[in-house]
Amino acid sequence: MTQVDPLSMWNAGDAKETILRFVLGTTLKGSETYVPPLERIAVFDNDGTLWVEQPYYTQLRFALDRTRELAADHPEWQTDATLKAALDNDISSIAAQGMAGVAKIVAASHAGITTEELAQAVRDWIESARHPRFRRLYTELIFQPQLQLIRFLREHDYRTYIVSGGGVEFMRAWSQDVYGIPPEQVVGSSAKTVFEMRNGRGVLVQLPEIDLVDDGPGKPVGINKYVGRRPTIAVGNSDGDMEMLQYATTGDGPSLGVYIHHDDAEREYAYDRHAVCGGLDKGIEEAAKRNWLVVSMQNDWNQIFS
Amino acid sequence: MTQVDPLSMWNAGDAKETILRFVLGTTLKGSETYVPPLERIAVFDNDGTLWVEQPYYTQLRFALDRTRELAADHPEWQTDATLKAALDNDISSIAAQGMAGVAKIVAASHAGITTEELAQAVRDWIESARHPRFRRLYTELIFQPQLQLIRFLREHDYRTYIVSGGGVEFMRAWSQDVYGIPPEQVVGSSAKTVFEMRNGRGVLVQLPEIDLVDDGPGKPVGINKYVGRRPTIAVGNSDGDMEMLQYATTGDGPSLGVYIHHDDAEREYAYDRHAVCGGLDKGIEEAAKRNWLVVSMQNDWNQIFS
Repeated sequence: MTQVDPLSMWNAGDAKETILRFVLGTTLKGSETYVPPLERIAVFDNDGTLWVEQPYYTQLRFALDRTRELAADHPEWQTDATLKAALDNDISSIAAQGMAGVAKIVAASHAGITTEELAQAVRDWIESARHPRFRRLYTELIFQPQLQLIRFLREHDYRTYIVSGGGVEFMRAWSQDVYGIPPEQVVGSSAKTVFEMRNGRGVLVQLPEIDLVDDGPGKPVGINKYVGRRPTIAVGNSDGDMEMLQYATTGDGPSLGVYIHHDDAEREYAYDRHAVCGGLDKGIEEAAKRNWLVVSMQNDWNQIFS
Repeated sequence: MTQVDPLSMWNAGDAKETILRFVLGTTLKGSETYVPPLERIAVFDNDGTLWVEQPYYTQLRFALDRTRELAADHPEWQTDATLKAALDNDISSIAAQGMAGVAKIVAASHAGITTEELAQAVRDWIESARHPRFRRLYTELIFQPQLQLIRFLREHDYRTYIVSGGGVEFMRAWSQDVYGIPPEQVVGSSAKTVFEMRNGRGVLVQLPEIDLVDDGPGKPVGINKYVGRRPTIAVGNSDGDMEMLQYATTGDGPSLGVYIHHDDAEREYAYDRHAVCGGLDKGIEEAAKRNWLVVSMQNDWNQIFS
């Protein structure tokens, strides 16, 4: 009798063993660390945790493309430092502003249209845009070992959430197809919206104002708002995920904090302390202090992309 | 062979038949109005739709009790019209401000504590506070035919959400126990929160600022934010639910809008156009125009409370 390895893309070692032990320990009836199904929440960052975030956030590419399309109608963008940088394709200056800068560009460039129109624009874009280095669709740059992990967790009655600095409408447009994660389990940065009747149809119209920046300390805020529970498992890869991991791992029950470490320049990228996007500096010290699992992409994953 | 009637507390008639036909039509494979399970979302208002909202919102009673407890520490409340009304127990003046007034009192009186402390305070309160007329616990004043409907929908793979002007933390403290609806399926008005480490524990602290007023046009905003899909079924009882029903019933697929009409002064209350809480005026005209189902509590329900 052979048993299929649910995490076959994870190499044997501490990381894989820790994950398997934790998931079985929280789901096997009678286990000392058992967690009832209703409380099994696993939250995953998206950029750099589930897919590539280098040389810069995918959504930033989408937003920059839109910003340039719409620039002629918005002369006022020329006098705003962030939006001017967007029009100049000045990635490093935008990235230096973190998710707040991205959120601002997203909010401005997505305003006025309905959430349904935006979702359609995202789907059109993501079906054709290609990553500058790998020349593949962005949805082909999902980390396959993570897809296995997500599936494994769902098989054990964990609800798997995305909790990302990325825009919620951007991710919801394809999260079901790509991750099997439905829109209601996607938490992200968002613009304010307003309800209107347009041609007899009730719609939500995007406003050029940021509602939530779901990054750093905004992640526990987003989790509490959308999920209303402390997660059991939190997986991230950057300082922007640190508070989410702190929140998940300082409750009363069993918990697992995981950092994905990008140390594979050959198959993907190698970066941490000094990265323009997805920097991991304070977080790595916090990981050591709090005993979070640090996964080496190079050593722990035998495959990265499909 | 006898078959158990899943809506036994609903009298035979148009309302019951419309609901049964719609649910079976959207869930029976091969039906012309079939809706795939992933898209089956039913949203329910809470106050006046799932439980009693007269003589005033239950949560208002809770917030007023807290406001008075904390008044000595907040002399500034004396100079704010809404909070002064709260301290004076001036219900009609507060109710005239609608959910925004309630949200303000809630935000102010719940500030500074963590969401976990607030949930505990709510649970303590709701286990002992009693309704002024019925002298029963508020959780005993749930409309039993609605509980049947919620269960019936869940059995047909609908995800059942609460979308209420009531405070999200207030409802989440007991929604699982009382309705079988988990925290992540409760959408409500909310205060802003901030993440902090307190005594080594990551917590969300309530700020005295309103984040979302989930009422009227705020309901579709809340649904889009939390659920990310247009609902198939929307059930409400007041003008504050009108936009939610408009949103649900103006999409592309099959949909059902339902208004619960409070016309049973003997067993519960009779009110609509001129009610202080939960007024139903514009909505009843919209219901006729859009062919929403109007349920008569008096005629369509053979039981109200447990």
